[in-house]
Amino acid sequence: MTKIDPVIAPGASIGILGGGQLGRMLAMAAASLGYKCHIYEPQSECPAKEVAGRFTCAAFEDEAALDAFAKSVDVITYEFENVPAATAQFLAARRPVRPGVESLAASQDRLVEKRFLQSLGLPTAPFLPVEDGGSLARAVAQLGRPAILKSRRNGYDGKGQATIREGSDVGAVFRSLGFPSSIVEGKVNFVREASVIAARGLDGSFAAYDLCENRHENHILAKTIVPAQAAPETAARAIEMTRVLADALSYVGVIGVEFFITLEKGRDGQMEEQLCVNEFAPRVHNSGHWTQDGATTSQFEQHIRAICGLPLGATTRLGDILMENLIGHEADGWASILGNPEARLHLYGKGEARAGRKMGHVTYVNQKPCA
Amino acid sequence: MTKIDPVIAPGASIGILGGGQLGRMLAMAAASLGYKCHIYEPQSECPAKEVAGRFTCAAFEDEAALDAFAKSVDVITYEFENVPAATAQFLAARRPVRPGVESLAASQDRLVEKRFLQSLGLPTAPFLPVEDGGSLARAVAQLGRPAILKSRRNGYDGKGQATIREGSDVGAVFRSLGFPSSIVEGKVNFVREASVIAARGLDGSFAAYDLCENRHENHILAKTIVPAQAAPETAARAIEMTRVLADALSYVGVIGVEFFITLEKGRDGQMEEQLCVNEFAPRVHNSGHWTQDGATTSQFEQHIRAICGLPLGATTRLGDILMENLIGHEADGWASILGNPEARLHLYGKGEARAGRKMGHVTYVNQKPCA
Repeated sequence: MTKIDPVIAPGASIGILGGGQLGRMLAMAAASLGYKCHIYEPQSECPAKEVAGRFTCAAFEDEAALDAFAKSVDVITYEFENVPAATAQFLAARRPVRPGVESLAASQDRLVEKRFLQSLGLPTAPFLPVEDGGSLARAVAQLGRPAILKSRRNGYDGKGQATIREGSDVGAVFRSLGFPSSIVEGKVNFVREASVIAARGLDGSFAAYDLCENRHENHILAKTIVPAQAAPETAARAIEMTRVLADALSYVGVIGVEFFITLEKGRDGQMEEQLCVNEFAPRVHNSGHWTQDGATTSQFEQHIRAICGLPLGATTRLGDILMENLIGHEADGWASILGNPEARLHLYGKGEARAGRKMGHVTYVNQKPCA
Repeated sequence: MTKIDPVIAPGASIGILGGGQLGRMLAMAAASLGYKCHIYEPQSECPAKEVAGRFTCAAFEDEAALDAFAKSVDVITYEFENVPAATAQFLAARRPVRPGVESLAASQDRLVEKRFLQSLGLPTAPFLPVEDGGSLARAVAQLGRPAILKSRRNGYDGKGQATIREGSDVGAVFRSLGFPSSIVEGKVNFVREASVIAARGLDGSFAAYDLCENRHENHILAKTIVPAQAAPETAARAIEMTRVLADALSYVGVIGVEFFITLEKGRDGQMEEQLCVNEFAPRVHNSGHWTQDGATTSQFEQHIRAICGLPLGATTRLGDILMENLIGHEADGWASILGNPEARLHLYGKGEARAGRKMGHVTYVNQKPCA
């Protein structure tokens, strides 16, 4: 018997795990469609609680709090992929969790993720699992240098990563990372980093935004430019790979897939663009923030539409886009940003502008005004 | 000594009097700029509390609650003009109230409002004050029929109004309205209703959106079309009148001014458009909701910028606009609206779809997508 997923109608309550800026912007998009939101977050001060009607401050292991949270909402989503598997399973037994528990599991462990991508025929960097200094040494011998050691779990914004260069002491690098379960990846000589932000609906419908080009600084996203400088066929292939991945996961919601674009010599001897999947995030993604100002439907509204079983919105781009993250004290420049009629400022209401902390972003849409 | 108004920087707290949909959309715009919001509203269930970090449910006469509210915020604004004068004065003694107490006073009494507009040389419908059946009869004799009897205070969406037609019993109409302090207005034979949504900054800067054309049904705004069907000179004159009014009030924030457009025979015998101010609202205005999707800066963000002493944002229109209010059960059509890729749905999260209740709105922006 096929279970029919009912539409979760405006007026219902959405539970969001995680109270950061992504949870905040999801809650605001949900409110625009008439939903109520309940934020669940272990930290008492967080950006999302300021824009939601309900807030639970409790640990992800607190089953009484999780149970009460689940009972208070109609559907549950999350703003980050490091929700413990046990938490997700506990909640999924009580309310729909979207994207599903399998999507979480496939993305929160780099080894599982890479093997899953491989199983779908999606190209990745060469990789090998690492459990100790010995296996790391053998892997580096096989993959060559430079190579990148990455923790299997809980890495973000370059945390839990170390590069093994010519002359690096492999054992010392392994000990410095401090994560026994890791993978090592061969370094990809990419010419450009890109991402696809797409959504898959409860009915299997699929909608992608135009390919985004991303520039990182200190392992943190600094800028996104749309459309990416890439051949149309490259963009189309990246979107098709995203669809393959989303379908394989029976994915529901917005997904962000990061790609490396390399230049390889083709059979005819001409250089051509090739794609390699770096990683995917089962959630709204920083490189999709531009859609708030530069697309018909924002990625946040799109995610809410998908998890509530509503039709996906149009992903039409409204101009040429530059999105800049405001990291740490860059957000102190808000006054001059507000003075620029081309700039659209978004601040997350975080108290302290620590180094490396994402405080906000600014979007520039080169949009044709109406005559 | 000139008092210098300090900028209220992102991270500060904004107090909003009134918890309806205008307060809700103001709070969301404030959050996008990194502000915290505190809603003050006598009703325990209200749309705005769902998107704000703090909520006080208390009467506008509760001085202890007002005092605590004022102390918790850095600036105070309001979503409706019927805030009692004593409440506004009590708060203004503690924190900046923007728009100011004078703007409230000038707009919440129709007689004061009309006389103020007259004093600025701005055209209005002919009007006379009414205190009893006798003065109403004399006024109608002078202004002719049809004429419209309006309560001086607390009217909105056609409430507190009655039309005196040929054959109407003037005394009966007066008693049926039930407001002793009223005005009677001569009926304006307008061809079109229009509005200007504009903002005046703390530094006296001024920015207006394009002239809006408004269609009412049952005295409630049904549709807004932008640009209005009017001569460019008519639109320019309406904006200039709005600037004169805002300057005279030393206004700070977004103001909505409603106009009647009439056709009159000019000196050369040609018919030409004339303007007449109907009323103004010292707040964001329903006919400006399209700016969320159809302008560079929404009226809600613009209001927050103004009351915080920030530079006003660009008011560039991004396409031809149709905004439709969803009144009562019209909001039940959300599913088909969400299925239309051209439509942008906004729901206010109100529980019960009572007749005449504004439940949401939908915007259509005929926007050129990027090639």
